[in-house]
Amino acid sequence: MATLLTSLQNARIKNILKLQNRRHRDAQQKTVVEGIREVHCALQSGILPDEAYVCPELLTDAEGTAVYQQLQTVAQTTQMPLFTITPELFAKAAYRGQSGGILLLIPYLTHTLQTLALSPTPLLLVIDGSEKPGNLGAILRTADAAGVEAVILTNPPGGGGTDMHNPNVVRASLGALFTRPVLETTPEALLGWLRHQKIKIAVLTPEGERPYTQTDLRGGVALIMGSEAHGVHPIWLKKADLRLKIPMFGTVDSLNLSVATAVVVFEAIRQRQETA
Amino acid sequence: MATLLTSLQNARIKNILKLQNRRHRDAQQKTVVEGIREVHCALQSGILPDEAYVCPELLTDAEGTAVYQQLQTVAQTTQMPLFTITPELFAKAAYRGQSGGILLLIPYLTHTLQTLALSPTPLLLVIDGSEKPGNLGAILRTADAAGVEAVILTNPPGGGGTDMHNPNVVRASLGALFTRPVLETTPEALLGWLRHQKIKIAVLTPEGERPYTQTDLRGGVALIMGSEAHGVHPIWLKKADLRLKIPMFGTVDSLNLSVATAVVVFEAIRQRQETA
Repeated sequence: MATLLTSLQNARIKNILKLQNRRHRDAQQKTVVEGIREVHCALQSGILPDEAYVCPELLTDAEGTAVYQQLQTVAQTTQMPLFTITPELFAKAAYRGQSGGILLLIPYLTHTLQTLALSPTPLLLVIDGSEKPGNLGAILRTADAAGVEAVILTNPPGGGGTDMHNPNVVRASLGALFTRPVLETTPEALLGWLRHQKIKIAVLTPEGERPYTQTDLRGGVALIMGSEAHGVHPIWLKKADLRLKIPMFGTVDSLNLSVATAVVVFEAIRQRQETA
Repeated sequence: MATLLTSLQNARIKNILKLQNRRHRDAQQKTVVEGIREVHCALQSGILPDEAYVCPELLTDAEGTAVYQQLQTVAQTTQMPLFTITPELFAKAAYRGQSGGILLLIPYLTHTLQTLALSPTPLLLVIDGSEKPGNLGAILRTADAAGVEAVILTNPPGGGGTDMHNPNVVRASLGALFTRPVLETTPEALLGWLRHQKIKIAVLTPEGERPYTQTDLRGGVALIMGSEAHGVHPIWLKKADLRLKIPMFGTVDSLNLSVATAVVVFEAIRQRQETA
C-alpha cells in the first residue's frame, strides 16, 4: 500500500525540490523523473526508483493508470517506497506544470565506456561541450529514433554546462535518456577508448573537407558534434579520421545543434540502410 | 544626427514594449528586431525600418559599429528616425538581455503567394500549425542554410499560435526570417496555388507509405510538416501527392519538429545535388 503524504513541510518533498539544484543531485547521485511517458521509459529500461510519488487525482488516462499499477507492483516486490500525494503537494513538488501526476527519484545512470555492449559496427554520437536542456533532449530523441547505439557527452571537466541528469533534460528527451546508454566522460578518455575499439572518428566542423553526404559513414563510427558557440574541443579536430561539413547555401548559414546532429545521423542511417 | 532619448516615460519606448503583445503588433503592422546579426539581416534584405534605436555604449565589436554606421546612412538618406538611447533605457526596451545595443521597429513583411519569384523547380517548406518561437526560429535557420526558396506558414485562421512576426521568432531565427520569403496563408489558398503552379505536395506523416529517402524529392516540391502534437491539417493528408515517413528504430520514436524538418529538407537537397 502506498503511504499518503499531505504536508508541504514533509522532508521528502523538500528533498525533491532540493534536487532541482545540481549540487544536491551530484551529492545524492539522484535525479527526478516527471511525466507519464518519461516514467514509463525509466521503468522499461530496468531502473529501480529510490522513491515514487503518485497523485491519483491527476492520473487522467489509461497510460497513467497503467504506470501507477506498475509502480505498485514494484513497491510490493522490492520495498521501493511509494507515496500518494495530494494535488496541492504534487503541484509543489513537480518542477513543471503538466507532469501527469507521477514523479520518481532515481539513482544516477551508471553507464561507462567499459560497460557499453556494442554491435560490431556501432554508430555512436558524441556531444562535445554543454548544451541547453531542450537541445540535449531533442538530441536524445533523435538518437533514440535513429537507433544510435550510445550517446556520449564530453563536458569539459568541472565545466558548468548542462549535466545529463538535469530534470529538464529528462523531460525534453521525453524519456529517451533511458532508452539507450547515455554517459559522460572526458575527451581524452573517449579518444583512447575509440582508438582501442577501432571506431572511426568523424567530426562535424565548418572547416570540414568533405560534405557529409559524400563520406562513408558505415562501419563503426563515432560522430563528434561541438556546441554552436564554441565548436569542438581541439583534440577532435586534430585526431579525427574524418572532418565533415554540411554544405550551406544561405546567408545566416547556421544550424541549431540538434538539427545539425539529426541531419548527419540520419544520413549515416540512410547509408547503412541502403547497403543492408 | 541621432536624437538622444533618456526618459523611461518616452512614448516611443512605451510603444516598443507594447509590441511584445501580438494584438498591438497586428494593429500597427509592426514588429521589433533585436540583435546585431538580426538587424544586419533585416537591412541586407532591403527592409526600411520605421524607427531605429542604438545604445552606443553597448556596441562592443566591429560588426555592431558597422551596422550602426549603416543605420546612420539610412537615416540621412530616408528620414528614418534614428535614436540613441542610454544603457538604462535600452535595458528597459530590449525584450532579451543580450541584444547587442541595436533595436529596430520594422513594418510587417508583405510576401504573398502571388509575389513569390520562384525557380522552375523550387523546394518549398510548409509548416502547418503553430510552433513555439524557438522551434520556428530553428526551422527558418534550416531553410536558410539549405537554400529552401520560401517558407509558408499555414496557421489555422484566427488560431492562437505563434505568428511569424513574434520578436522571439526573429531572435531564434538569428535573422533568417529575412533571408528568404516567409509568409502566412490558409491551407486552402495554398493548396489551390500549389496545384496551379504544378508543385508536388509531399506531406510527412507517421502513416506515410514511403520512406523519405526512397522518394524523389527533386523537381518542384512543397514539403508539408505538421505540429508534433496535432499533425497536419486533414486537407494535406487527403490531397498530398506523396506521403512520406521517417523510419524510426527506437522506443520513444518522436522527433522534434525542427529536427524532422531538417532531416527531410537536407535529404531533398542531397538528391538535388547528386543529380546536378
